Amino acid sequence: MRMNSAAMRMNSAARLSAACALVVVFAVGAAAQQKPCMTASKFGPDDQIGNLNYVTPAKTLAASKLITRGKAYRLGIETNKDTPAYGTRTFAVIVLQPGQAGGATIGPNKTTYNDDIITGWVGIGSQIDGFGHLGIDNLYFNCNKAADFAMPDGLKKLGIEHVPAIATRGVLLDMAGYFGVDIVKEGTAFNRAEIEGAMKRQGIKAIEKGDVVLFYSGWLKLLGKDNKRFISVNPGPGRDGARYLASLEVAMIGTDTSNFEVIPFEKDAGVFEVHQILLARNGIHILENINTEEMVKDQAWEFLFTLGPARITGGVQAIINPIAIK
Amino acid sequence: MRMNSAAMRMNSAARLSAACALVVVFAVGAAAQQKPCMTASKFGPDDQIGNLNYVTPAKTLAASKLITRGKAYRLGIETNKDTPAYGTRTFAVIVLQPGQAGGATIGPNKTTYNDDIITGWVGIGSQIDGFGHLGIDNLYFNCNKAADFAMPDGLKKLGIEHVPAIATRGVLLDMAGYFGVDIVKEGTAFNRAEIEGAMKRQGIKAIEKGDVVLFYSGWLKLLGKDNKRFISVNPGPGRDGARYLASLEVAMIGTDTSNFEVIPFEKDAGVFEVHQILLARNGIHILENINTEEMVKDQAWEFLFTLGPARITGGVQAIINPIAIK
Amino acid sequence: MRMNSAAMRMNSAARLSAACALVVVFAVGAAAQQKPCMTASKFGPDDQIGNLNYVTPAKTLAASKLITRGKAYRLGIETNKDTPAYGTRTFAVIVLQPGQAGGATIGPNKTTYNDDIITGWVGIGSQIDGFGHLGIDNLYFNCNKAADFAMPDGLKKLGIEHVPAIATRGVLLDMAGYFGVDIVKEGTAFNRAEIEGAMKRQGIKAIEKGDVVLFYSGWLKLLGKDNKRFISVNPGPGRDGARYLASLEVAMIGTDTSNFEVIPFEKDAGVFEVHQILLARNGIHILENINTEEMVKDQAWEFLFTLGPARITGGVQAIINPIAIK
Amino acid sequence: MRMNSAAMRMNSAARLSAACALVVVFAVGAAAQQKPCMTASKFGPDDQIGNLNYVTPAKTLAASKLITRGKAYRLGIETNKDTPAYGTRTFAVIVLQPGQAGGATIGPNKTTYNDDIITGWVGIGSQIDGFGHLGIDNLYFNCNKAADFAMPDGLKKLGIEHVPAIATRGVLLDMAGYFGVDIVKEGTAFNRAEIEGAMKRQGIKAIEKGDVVLFYSGWLKLLGKDNKRFISVNPGPGRDGARYLASLEVAMIGTDTSNFEVIPFEKDAGVFEVHQILLARNGIHILENINTEEMVKDQAWEFLFTLGPARITGGVQAIINPIAIK
Repeated sequence: MRMNSAAMRMNSAARLSAACALVVVFAVGAAAQQKPCMTASKFGPDDQIGNLNYVTPAKTLAASKLITRGKAYRLGIETNKDTPAYGTRTFAVIVLQPGQAGGATIGPNKTTYNDDIITGWVGIGSQIDGFGHLGIDNLYFNCNKAADFAMPDGLKKLGIEHVPAIATRGVLLDMAGYFGVDIVKEGTAFNRAEIEGAMKRQGIKAIEKGDVVLFYSGWLKLLGKDNKRFISVNPGPGRDGARYLASLEVAMIGTDTSNFEVIPFEKDAGVFEVHQILLARNGIHILENINTEEMVKDQAWEFLFTLGPARITGGVQAIINPIAIK
Repeated sequence: MRMNSAAMRMNSAARLSAACALVVVFAVGAAAQQKPCMTASKFGPDDQIGNLNYVTPAKTLAASKLITRGKAYRLGIETNKDTPAYGTRTFAVIVLQPGQAGGATIGPNKTTYNDDIITGWVGIGSQIDGFGHLGIDNLYFNCNKAADFAMPDGLKKLGIEHVPAIATRGVLLDMAGYFGVDIVKEGTAFNRAEIEGAMKRQGIKAIEKGDVVLFYSGWLKLLGKDNKRFISVNPGPGRDGARYLASLEVAMIGTDTSNFEVIPFEKDAGVFEVHQILLARNGIHILENINTEEMVKDQAWEFLFTLGPARITGGVQAIINPIAIK
Repeated sequence: MRMNSAAMRMNSAARLSAACALVVVFAVGAAAQQKPCMTASKFGPDDQIGNLNYVTPAKTLAASKLITRGKAYRLGIETNKDTPAYGTRTFAVIVLQPGQAGGATIGPNKTTYNDDIITGWVGIGSQIDGFGHLGIDNLYFNCNKAADFAMPDGLKKLGIEHVPAIATRGVLLDMAGYFGVDIVKEGTAFNRAEIEGAMKRQGIKAIEKGDVVLFYSGWLKLLGKDNKRFISVNPGPGRDGARYLASLEVAMIGTDTSNFEVIPFEKDAGVFEVHQILLARNGIHILENINTEEMVKDQAWEFLFTLGPARITGGVQAIINPIAIK
Repeated sequence: MRMNSAAMRMNSAARLSAACALVVVFAVGAAAQQKPCMTASKFGPDDQIGNLNYVTPAKTLAASKLITRGKAYRLGIETNKDTPAYGTRTFAVIVLQPGQAGGATIGPNKTTYNDDIITGWVGIGSQIDGFGHLGIDNLYFNCNKAADFAMPDGLKKLGIEHVPAIATRGVLLDMAGYFGVDIVKEGTAFNRAEIEGAMKRQGIKAIEKGDVVLFYSGWLKLLGKDNKRFISVNPGPGRDGARYLASLEVAMIGTDTSNFEVIPFEKDAGVFEVHQILLARNGIHILENINTEEMVKDQAWEFLFTLGPARITGGVQAIINPIAIK
């Protein structure tokens, strides 16, 4: 069975009626918030990058001055079939030698080569969550509705290919140090008090507009040792902490955990509500499994953070490996 | 049919005899070159990163001083099913809404989400060629033989996950400007004369140890307009140019074409011999489809170049999106 | 972001509320139809195979008597990247030689081998639609709701692995012969009149309980010649024809088109309403792209039809190649 | 890096020289065997189906007379991510609801649907080995050399799409019964003595030209219970047994194990030498993981065997589900 264009036309009608149902919800929200919808971008109806708009040349230039030692850090963990991942996610790499069956080589200079193929879910390993990843009742960042952009062959808006060049100030909060532990306990929420406490302890004066804030909890020490615990729970930003950082207009927030936000969720919190607060309501990207172990050892608290996610058209997320430079 | 451990044991015998045949070749090479094999690394038998060893903190620190404007450039092109790619290479992204069939949402806060899956060849779009990509008669960088590391579920050595954090000086050579054309003609080799000519024209005093050298030819202007020409031929580094840059001990070389080196190949040149010179013989990584169009407009000739390829274990190549900062 | 068990618990609450909404609809239907839901199976609440229950040993034995010539027909068409398929569907086969890089062979007997990998949508080429393929507002065959069984890693009910061994009477209706054309025009509905007309013309006395009915329209002659027309429209069963065959309690219905039912849809018909009538309401499997060209030439109208779809656990559809024996 | 047509031209030269090396070997073989190469088909140089040529209408008609009860058997086991498979082989099914994000339905009749995608190695579960699967030093059935037909996007000869409609006499040999055990011990070879012994015990008078011979060993009882043992060793046909059945000109041979032939291999046997004897030297297809448990219970020793592997162009193997009818 295949859907033809006639089907697609009628589909519009169906979507319209689905949209009508949503309108009621939105109408209520609109009255309260005076904006087109609860996820509207402050950067206008065409915006797809949210607070990354704050990463201006002036911001980048200032951040480059934080480089004092020249040490570059590789923040990505490895992605492979053994990387812990939620239930149905799988990953495989295939390596082959095209056209070389039987030991054939190419040309008088005997060229040989390997090629590789990936078949897998993107949400495995270090990753960036694009704005199309998580929404509120199918409403995503900047009033985009799933039915309008979430197509089976890729997102038609909010795709990962739109992420601009990222080079901005990074701030690393050592939450393990703040709590005086090797690994912060699961369920520990990083809220305003903890954030400010860690900043004070580390001598960080301010978190600024357009910054990338990274949390270190020591959680990656569990990787490969207790994958079940690693993947099912973790410490992380709570709702108050997320709203606080949003109020500071940061560009991105990252953690060294796979779920990013605190799990078990805070009392009375919804399911992945912190994701909703950041991605959908505030246009703040989320980074997961960001390995800052070595940076903590070096006390590299403020630095230039750079990231260029592979530009796979319509991608929801990307497997990443940011480079921090102190 | 499946290979069991008994099979694998006998396999070793077979490999041994194959290896014996190679020994003859190596013996000849060894006598002439006084090194373990023709692709031996100057950084020792365990080396997997070649000239990236030159990217030291001092090098990074110096490169960071090249940032004078704060403008960051996104050098990746998009990868999707329409990106021109050689014959058998295909690429697909799949977007789905796990557990949400029928419009189900999750939790009282009505979370919804999209996930994505990739099934495709890595060699499509902007990419880095790892040292496991191309060799000489199955001998790859640093004396690694294909039979020893090129396994179907990923490379056991030279995998892309070993690439360190890259933050170094980048130099952009505007070959279109040098030739006074919009698009440099296919088959035009960039050799020592052309490289030095472009440097002189742009006022670049030196290419230094550990640099990343990017060539701009205007070739990406053909993308989506004449894909057949785009994918089958292009200007690019010739053998003499590759050897010259290798003598300068650069860390990486990139072009704005999919084949990297000049095609049709130079007279008397082998098939992808420039790849062999760089990847296998000199431990210099190759970058393809690097979009420097905007940098040329801005005359951003010397800059901080950063790259963190996604760390897919055993990957041969990686789809990349380097960030250059001027 | 990953869903944990806490999320899943809340998810149940969400599903419950979604289910409540459906209950209203079902209540209305139940009153009218006196059955648990509009798609309830006559074979009981645990049934997953519908009218294939009619394929009993007695039925198979009788059908085997239809073999009078011994000629076996291969009814599958080929599936590959060029097989026309709806918009986002793609298909790729990858062939590799594991562990044989560099020409290595295995053992003293020099074994070599090729292996293959598939990455693709199942709905390409000849196929069987399982009961989990198409539903009515997320209600599938036998009162199964999408939210309960359509999981991202496979169907938890109605998966293709449940299809039993099929060996039953097949009846081929030559609609091209009936209409006196090579290729029946798109939009031509096969309804009761056409079915009975074709039967009469071919001397087929009856369509019986548990039969597989195949329609020949000549449509596969367009394959590779006019793929756009082939994939977007076709003749096929109409609503009346589907209901008529359902009243005769056939087990499966197949056509030589990719969409199965008549397109453009009949006046006032819904989108793929014939699929709904057969798969969801009547437990009758659908077969697509069934190549009966040679059978028509041989006037093989009544025969033994056999089919064993590959038992991929949780599969929605299967790529098939039925064998008919006359 | 991509191979262009210039590269391909030189490739031919390289292949030529590789071919020359083989010619020496073939020349020796030819002198001894008086045939073009050691894997030449008795059905001529264009043959791609080997002993399936013996499955003629007369053969099929005769086999249909073996149907006396009408009971049809489903011989396939399930294929999924947990099906034991050799080292690097993986398998995943993905189910999604295209265009239905947010609960959208299609048309006034509210159509909804699931689609499925497969990403995985074909050699998992019940399978047929095509003639392109296994060879002798890169020489495959009927003098086909790997370098000539084993392309990364599919086999250019010997692909699974060439398998004709199969409907022939099946013979089931109950080796567990013969040995008086539930599960025949690993390493037990089925050779001429065992085959004839089992035939005598079951009252099977003859194995005939064009037959499919299935062995039952009870090995599938280990599936899911001791997967490590299941996948690494098993009883099965030995070299003498394979040659004996080849002398009887059978069309296919199947077992209820994943490796098919006896492992550990017989003393002095090569690695998968039985595969070589059947696939490469004699044009006899191999079937693996064929579940005949229920047939043994029913003493269904002689029957009509039918098989139509999905016709994936260029496929090496196929996941199958044969139907036997007694």
